[in-house]
Amino acid sequence: MLQIHGVPISVHTRKVIVAAIEKGLPYELRQVVPVVPDSLPANWRAVSPTGLIPVISDGDFTLGDSAAICAYLERAHPQRPLYPAEPRALGRAMWFENYAGGTIFRHIVHPLFIEVFVQPNVNRIAPDQQKIDAVLNTALPETFGYLESELGMSRFLAGDTLSMGDVAVVSNLITFQYIGFRLDAARYPRLAALFQDVVMYPAVREAIQKEQATVQGMGLNGDCVRAALN
Amino acid sequence: MLQIHGVPISVHTRKVIVAAIEKGLPYELRQVVPVVPDSLPANWRAVSPTGLIPVISDGDFTLGDSAAICAYLERAHPQRPLYPAEPRALGRAMWFENYAGGTIFRHIVHPLFIEVFVQPNVNRIAPDQQKIDAVLNTALPETFGYLESELGMSRFLAGDTLSMGDVAVVSNLITFQYIGFRLDAARYPRLAALFQDVVMYPAVREAIQKEQATVQGMGLNGDCVRAALN
Ligand SMILES: N[C@@H](CCC(=O)N[C@@H](CS)C(=O)NCC(=O)O)C(=O)O
Ligand SMILES: N[C@@H](CCC(=O)N[C@@H](CS)C(=O)NCC(=O)O)C(=O)O
Repeated sequence: MLQIHGVPISVHTRKVIVAAIEKGLPYELRQVVPVVPDSLPANWRAVSPTGLIPVISDGDFTLGDSAAICAYLERAHPQRPLYPAEPRALGRAMWFENYAGGTIFRHIVHPLFIEVFVQPNVNRIAPDQQKIDAVLNTALPETFGYLESELGMSRFLAGDTLSMGDVAVVSNLITFQYIGFRLDAARYPRLAALFQDVVMYPAVREAIQKEQATVQGMGLNGDCVRAALN
Repeated sequence: MLQIHGVPISVHTRKVIVAAIEKGLPYELRQVVPVVPDSLPANWRAVSPTGLIPVISDGDFTLGDSAAICAYLERAHPQRPLYPAEPRALGRAMWFENYAGGTIFRHIVHPLFIEVFVQPNVNRIAPDQQKIDAVLNTALPETFGYLESELGMSRFLAGDTLSMGDVAVVSNLITFQYIGFRLDAARYPRLAALFQDVVMYPAVREAIQKEQATVQGMGLNGDCVRAALN
């Protein structure tokens, strides 16, 4: 059976879980939380050369990096595609997938997660409000404003059907809300509509429902995301 | 005609140039050097939402991120494929492509480039030898050692034919040498053999030859890379 090493509130691990659910693949989640060194299996560096999650094992095949894993699952299980066939739409889906990892995660969700979760809960030090404000006042409006501007012409980011680009962007917005921040629907109405559409997509909805035990176990706030499912 | 915005010594721009050459696509290189603000066209942020290079324009279609661009070119021009068809090999090719961008570039080539090129030539301050040593003594042996260990079973990283995974890794090794560092072939013999194989691959070789004017214009050292072409 497909094994997914990671934790479901990780924005990148969630992409892989959604792909497995969408394609009807049974999977087992092996809990690995990189910020909690005790959670790492003994052979972790052999499994994950970068130390990052997610990593999958599929029989004797091990693969890291959520984009590489999703491409592998798509090629091995082409049913219910998560990437468009048409070249430009495919390019856009991957652009947004990589923008989600390289900009939204790196410049917004990751630094906020470090301040509001890792610092108090793992390192036992107070969050740095200046760092939080810098993200909220600079990276966030630039990034969300860009996404808003890209949503004028089609329902989803790469056309009229959902792609991994949408899943990757919304996966960031989910974790952003779990750690206590809110998506301003008045300022970013199209992005808020995308969020709503994507969380109601059956495979995403199922992934979110399954992760609520972890959300509660980590003391995160799932109210807003759960409310969007109703 | 395909326009590629970037500079050929950029590790990510070179991937796109190699793909265009391999697929026989005429292209025009529009010189944009993010570290030199004067080189940015007036509408740069509209072209590149992240400010990063490369970005392509193909008719009225604009796309950033080298991995998304290469996937787009592969789908639009499937001749002379740069990604394997088989699912596991495809996953591995993309894993190494993203490892090249996320680990080799971010943790080795980019910090070294900042110290040895940007600091003295753009910011007019001396390189920080401690930062350079930290990269050379920690990130480099870990990363090159990992790549060496992955090259035991096949000639290329994702099997017996060249893929974008190899191009992306070697693209980093080329720029690493331009900025004055050397690949220790005694310590990393398989990686050095991969380097040699990939630079002799016709499309890569052609891309390297075409960029020598830029290498010289920027005062970089192309000797080692040029020597590998003979
Ligand atoms: N490019 C990777 C990025 C993975 C990544 O950044 N994972 C985060 C969790 S979402 C992680 O492992 N962070 C722990 C760390 O940086 O040590 C992917 O798409 O899988
Ligand atoms: N994920 C991007 C990364 C591109 C990237 O980092 N480009 C570098 C040059 S190789 C750049 O634009 N650096 C300038 C900067 O960081 O401002 C891709 O693969 O295209």
